Amino acid sequence: MHVHLRDGPMCKLITPTVRSGGIAICYVMPNLVPPVTTKQQVVEYHAKLQSLAPKTTFLMTLYLSKDLTPELLEECAGLIHGIKCYPAGVTTNSKYGVDPNDFSAFYPLFAKMQELGLVLNLHGEKPSTKEEGDDINVINAEPRFLPALRKLHDDFPKLKIVLEHCTTHEAIDLVRELNQDVKAGDEIYVAATITAHHLYLIIDNWAGNPINFCKPVAKFQKDRKSLIAAATSGEPWFFFGSDSAPHPIHTKQVHVGVCAGVYTQSDAVSYVAEIFDKEGKLQNLPKFIGSNGISYYGLDKTILDKHGDESVWLVERKNKVSMVIGNSDVNVVPFKAGDELKYTVEWRPNSKT
Amino acid sequence: MHVHLRDGPMCKLITPTVRSGGIAICYVMPNLVPPVTTKQQVVEYHAKLQSLAPKTTFLMTLYLSKDLTPELLEECAGLIHGIKCYPAGVTTNSKYGVDPNDFSAFYPLFAKMQELGLVLNLHGEKPSTKEEGDDINVINAEPRFLPALRKLHDDFPKLKIVLEHCTTHEAIDLVRELNQDVKAGDEIYVAATITAHHLYLIIDNWAGNPINFCKPVAKFQKDRKSLIAAATSGEPWFFFGSDSAPHPIHTKQVHVGVCAGVYTQSDAVSYVAEIFDKEGKLQNLPKFIGSNGISYYGLDKTILDKHGDESVWLVERKNKVSMVIGNSDVNVVPFKAGDELKYTVEWRPNSKT
Repeated sequence: MHVHLRDGPMCKLITPTVRSGGIAICYVMPNLVPPVTTKQQVVEYHAKLQSLAPKTTFLMTLYLSKDLTPELLEECAGLIHGIKCYPAGVTTNSKYGVDPNDFSAFYPLFAKMQELGLVLNLHGEKPSTKEEGDDINVINAEPRFLPALRKLHDDFPKLKIVLEHCTTHEAIDLVRELNQDVKAGDEIYVAATITAHHLYLIIDNWAGNPINFCKPVAKFQKDRKSLIAAATSGEPWFFFGSDSAPHPIHTKQVHVGVCAGVYTQSDAVSYVAEIFDKEGKLQNLPKFIGSNGISYYGLDKTILDKHGDESVWLVERKNKVSMVIGNSDVNVVPFKAGDELKYTVEWRPNSKT
Repeated sequence: MHVHLRDGPMCKLITPTVRSGGIAICYVMPNLVPPVTTKQQVVEYHAKLQSLAPKTTFLMTLYLSKDLTPELLEECAGLIHGIKCYPAGVTTNSKYGVDPNDFSAFYPLFAKMQELGLVLNLHGEKPSTKEEGDDINVINAEPRFLPALRKLHDDFPKLKIVLEHCTTHEAIDLVRELNQDVKAGDEIYVAATITAHHLYLIIDNWAGNPINFCKPVAKFQKDRKSLIAAATSGEPWFFFGSDSAPHPIHTKQVHVGVCAGVYTQSDAVSYVAEIFDKEGKLQNLPKFIGSNGISYYGLDKTILDKHGDESVWLVERKNKVSMVIGNSDVNVVPFKAGDELKYTVEWRPNSKT
């Protein structure tokens, strides 16, 4: 429910791996260059992705910016499922983003989103301060953002908001707290996605290893444990968003300005399954990678109509992660390249009843 | 008072830059491959360095390991000034190092060092734990080491101990505390070095920038401010140790296993001077880069005998850091490559009186 498919040769390479990694429906991030901010871009990008992977369902988003208007949202309502908000400057192609210290300029837009049932997808980090003063850094950037999430939910209690790729125990705690009065069957408004790689990584794993450097950065064991507990809990407000974010290998092998992002899509379900297995919680895997997100986005009919004739099966069979995925145009090093995973996935037709 | 001069082509390239960076006497780290653990290695390495830079004074060290004996220390007493202790696995070529959870096996050695007046130079980090449990990581590795420093000082109150390249406010606080009863003119036993780059960097500056990745990693603004306050204070237990640690550029431009270390030696004094200038503390610069370390190591006579005929002058003249320093054999990217510094240094003969 959160994947970067890029454009150009990278898009061609990566888009088919959504399915091979075990995912039927994916939620596509709009941080292209230039970002996706018009109806035409949405239509064209969707058509391109669909042509590259006809059996995959691509859910489209717009990039929150001053270019968006309530009128545009009405026009796009059937074409998009949500809008992604990037704080300016925190990650790949986020320079067109917004100032998370003051969302008020976007309140008319949020009101329209709430009315149309569009989801607000938040990259939940405050931009780092370069000098003294308030001292926001890559470690506390997410906790410092959380009051903004709380305020947004207070101001728009029926706006669906997803805190994307959350990385801290503080974020997990807040999402739980904001759902404490939700009863079975109630609509869920505030949810969080968790990536595969944040179930594995802490700060030591990306210090000196650019391939594991992403934003938000992986934090500490306490945070990782909290993410694993949330993911494997089955709670309906936590679901998988890979935040798979491929970069050409040459942009990772630099001594300054390493691109932020970890590519996981080609083995997405296998990475997650291994963690669930270790925790003895494989029974909750379908919730995390499937039904929780499906329900949150109201996609039960989409599943039946478009994906009713086959299922993805988790198969216990050793599976070595490729050292590199690519072709003559572009190469990407996947997460845990060369490591052996315990599980793989297979697509199988559903038996007719 | 803490520099890595390496061996091979890197040593040839780097050793002369100690002087061009404004330093007359340097304290040489022993983490070669294999590490310096014999009298012969000390003699040969010293001769090599001296031939590469005849005007520079090189103070030699041994690498703390099980190969060292009290007898060897007696033999080497005139040749070395101290012994460097690396916790196994924390930084470049530290695999031969020791377990900082239990120094007791080295107590006979420390007793001999105390007797001979040799300095124990500590890389003050606990090794990271790979899995759950005690959860030591690159951020808390130094604070978690500090109880070991306190215990060593308790057990050997007259052993001279330097906490090298300290990076946290906790370390600064402890070194101050352990010196709280020291009066002017007293011998100082516990001191700390501070690097140039840790006066500039925080975690955000090395996240995604391997060129700024070193061990211990740079921490947060609170820590940086504490380091700057200590360095500029003039307090005699804080002095400069560059921990300049060059690595060939190709070992920084990798997506896994980036070498830890920042190379600063060729502009060492200029980097530090700029910070002192910003703080309005240039008057304390000679203490930090000179007399504090000279006094701690008892080198006043060395200065007079070997360096009495010239002085290094700080000159306010804009100075652009090289993008790369090298030759056909090896290339190194210096700290703040391409940036403009406010000061440079010049060696000038002392006027005869």
